[in-house]
Amino acid sequence: MRGVYCDGSSIRLRRDLPEPVPSDGETLLSVRVVGVCDTDLQLARGYMGFRGVLGHEFVGETDVGIRVAAEINNSCGSCPTCRAGLNTHCPNRTVLGILGHDGAMADRVCVPRVNVHVIPDHVGDHAAVFIEPLAAAFRITEQLALDASVAMAILGDGKLGQLCTWVAQLTGARVTLIGKHLAKLALAGTGVSIATLEESQALARHFDVVADCTGSTTGLATALRLVRPCGTIVLKTTVAGNHAADLSPIVINEVRVIGSRCGPFPKAIAALESGAIDVRPLIGAVFSLDRAEEAFESAAAKGARKVLLEVEAG
Amino acid sequence: MRGVYCDGSSIRLRRDLPEPVPSDGETLLSVRVVGVCDTDLQLARGYMGFRGVLGHEFVGETDVGIRVAAEINNSCGSCPTCRAGLNTHCPNRTVLGILGHDGAMADRVCVPRVNVHVIPDHVGDHAAVFIEPLAAAFRITEQLALDASVAMAILGDGKLGQLCTWVAQLTGARVTLIGKHLAKLALAGTGVSIATLEESQALARHFDVVADCTGSTTGLATALRLVRPCGTIVLKTTVAGNHAADLSPIVINEVRVIGSRCGPFPKAIAALESGAIDVRPLIGAVFSLDRAEEAFESAAAKGARKVLLEVEAG
Repeated sequence: MRGVYCDGSSIRLRRDLPEPVPSDGETLLSVRVVGVCDTDLQLARGYMGFRGVLGHEFVGETDVGIRVAAEINNSCGSCPTCRAGLNTHCPNRTVLGILGHDGAMADRVCVPRVNVHVIPDHVGDHAAVFIEPLAAAFRITEQLALDASVAMAILGDGKLGQLCTWVAQLTGARVTLIGKHLAKLALAGTGVSIATLEESQALARHFDVVADCTGSTTGLATALRLVRPCGTIVLKTTVAGNHAADLSPIVINEVRVIGSRCGPFPKAIAALESGAIDVRPLIGAVFSLDRAEEAFESAAAKGARKVLLEVEAG
Repeated sequence: MRGVYCDGSSIRLRRDLPEPVPSDGETLLSVRVVGVCDTDLQLARGYMGFRGVLGHEFVGETDVGIRVAAEINNSCGSCPTCRAGLNTHCPNRTVLGILGHDGAMADRVCVPRVNVHVIPDHVGDHAAVFIEPLAAAFRITEQLALDASVAMAILGDGKLGQLCTWVAQLTGARVTLIGKHLAKLALAGTGVSIATLEESQALARHFDVVADCTGSTTGLATALRLVRPCGTIVLKTTVAGNHAADLSPIVINEVRVIGSRCGPFPKAIAALESGAIDVRPLIGAVFSLDRAEEAFESAAAKGARKVLLEVEAG
């Protein structure tokens, strides 16, 4: 079959890949659409040393034609971490298209049955590709109590920053999106304050919660400047290399820094189904799987919106 | 009067200092004993650019002979931060012997009346010097729920590490003290597990809570290795320079990092009064104020225990 194969230093579309074979508890899905994520771009450059088929944001179809999305952590279910309810942190896990398990940029993909979520009929394929990153944005609402009493800043006007902004706004929190690009800041929509990085200089110690979605080594330092004493910083993105930050404000201002990763698919699906969140403005381009290499170049362009790959029956 | 004066690059005992004059809300205390803290050693080397009299861990005496300790943050009481109950984070604050306010390594010192706590009769002067750092250790118990269900590691077998170990043990938490020095690890006492840094290699992802009391740039990296997914790291010490740590495990393992600074004096005083905590094994040497320079050298020696300065009526 066809698939976007990462060899640890680059990607290419291969047509000679073996058909995936479901292991115990897995099901085989035909892929309909799959998104190119910043993580895919990093993996293509060697991040985590992954070799295999990329792709972890996707819409698949079961053998009886039901459209589904799938959570990406394939955990063992039996180790102490899993038994403690922390399945997404299972030390024995594979991660779809990221760690030890082929992903969904292919004609077909296998995923654990327990990871599958049905997509409601009137959530289109393109929107449904965002279920995974939108769930990651909803993770913040599981970790923090957000409501109208909370002044919250989102750092980074990229796709994840936008999703986090919209999710935070649903909670009633007073949200300010801070970024570098006026055109992207404008996507935040009504009810959200926006500020450029330069304008944010005036907002030191202003926010109860700051979510760093920059993927930049300087994001944490900015967050430490913006958060109030005893406030909370949420780290949503990993960065290549060490953060360029003096961490002493964490101690001096008794700041809480929380890592935040994968989140609840049902909440993301419900928000798309109800129309509470419309992700379509985030879509930049759609390519066919056969043009995957071109799609990766497009996704890697500065300021690119989400790039999708449509997988026609191959 | 006499006082240990920091000029931003070194300290010396001066005998020509003006008598301190209480400002509004302050009271004048005669100093009985004052401790040399690692922060004092850093201030003497230029940390925070402090100029003035050092000393923030002390026992003073009021004009009618009542022995007292004093909290170190002198806040304005009227700004939004203070009104929100976060007085120790007041942006207008001075800090005794650390920031904009002369400290207690002197014959006399002024402190805000609201910061003063009476020392019970049978808590000796030498033990009472530890009220301030012991309160800082108790701060952890205000920030986290610690009990017998919690496996907790304390990193660093110095004075603050020991105080945190003893405080954590009082909560019922299962405590492991991890450090470099067998003689200091042995101070932890019965009921506390001890491990050298090397032995701790086998304890990756083992602890619900890890408190970094090392004051070292590598402490956070070690803590990130020892803490379990979704566990908590408490940063008790600032370090000179940036931490040498890849922070991506914070995100990947959804770790919570909490800064922790000054704490509740009443809890520290109660623990000393009841005998629940005996700090005297931590005392290394006692000097007279006149020998302050020698005392600083002694405190700066590798592995030094707490050095105290006794202030005879001058």
